[in-house]
Amino acid sequence: MPHIALPSEHVGIRAGFAFRPATAKPMNELVEILLAGPSTLSKGERELIATYVSSRNCTHFCASIHGMIAAAHLNGDEALVKQVKTDFMRAEISPKLKALLVIAGKVQQDGKLVTADDVDTARKLGATDKEIHDTVLIAAAFCMYNRYVDGLDTVQPNDEALYRERGRQVARMGYVQTSREYLGAGGG
Amino acid sequence: MPHIALPSEHVGIRAGFAFRPATAKPMNELVEILLAGPSTLSKGERELIATYVSSRNCTHFCASIHGMIAAAHLNGDEALVKQVKTDFMRAEISPKLKALLVIAGKVQQDGKLVTADDVDTARKLGATDKEIHDTVLIAAAFCMYNRYVDGLDTVQPNDEALYRERGRQVARMGYVQTSREYLGAGGG
Repeated sequence: MPHIALPSEHVGIRAGFAFRPATAKPMNELVEILLAGPSTLSKGERELIATYVSSRNCTHFCASIHGMIAAAHLNGDEALVKQVKTDFMRAEISPKLKALLVIAGKVQQDGKLVTADDVDTARKLGATDKEIHDTVLIAAAFCMYNRYVDGLDTVQPNDEALYRERGRQVARMGYVQTSREYLGAGGG
Repeated sequence: MPHIALPSEHVGIRAGFAFRPATAKPMNELVEILLAGPSTLSKGERELIATYVSSRNCTHFCASIHGMIAAAHLNGDEALVKQVKTDFMRAEISPKLKALLVIAGKVQQDGKLVTADDVDTARKLGATDKEIHDTVLIAAAFCMYNRYVDGLDTVQPNDEALYRERGRQVARMGYVQTSREYLGAGGG
């Protein structure tokens, strides 16, 4: 049961957003820019970074929904998403994305763990400064979203089909537009 | 030296904001609402929560600047800020704020560590659901800001006077307005 009186018709982060639409707005705008805005990283790649960080933070809701959004951007390849969560070094992803996931995994623990070597490796595999910046910020931001979902003890359903359906919706509509659907126009 | 080519005229989070104004905007709006917007928690109390979390994450820039903003809101009482960083249970702050700092400290580690007992204790000492929500989100958000500052390896000066001066400026002008001063009107 959530620690505070969250609206019971919403689960996961949506319950926090519905409780406090003022903070939901910039939180939705940030994730929209990072994961769905213009970027030389594909939406699938960025969602995999968010999924990996959420999985390491053991936040079931975020790891599930972003895993399904990633899969929706990757021709429905849920097996690839699972492989990235459990052992990304052996996943069928680019060497550049592997180097970025190493950086993201360190930021998830503590930003100070990222070394110049980690960044050089990513750069030699083709990562730009903006891609490295966004990887650091996606990982940092999901340390916020994950703690928000867990710290309020929001309801985090186990129903995979629910995440699959919502994942497809977010992949199609983006974050800000989806949040308008469930929060109403004022919600961001 | 920063991991990527950040504008060298800025230090700490401002360098990341100047590198990527699009993400700076919602990040500034979020901190403005949480720390400087309308709330039944005073600005000094909310800045102490941000300072405490940043201190536990060992992010020198954020712990220093928010400590100085807190002090500016608390009649310049820098000794109280130091006491909160090192041993808040013995600080001259309200029992309610102590209970909220317990929650913030758990969120800093992992949101799942917050217990119903922690929340009940805060509530019995007068905390409202919105205050508990905002405490969780302030702690979660500073896990993002701290990792962003550290993960880019931004320059984090040791000069206390610099933080004192900027802390007073932010306390007076707020986050969004201050960011407009150093980023230009487009920055947020």
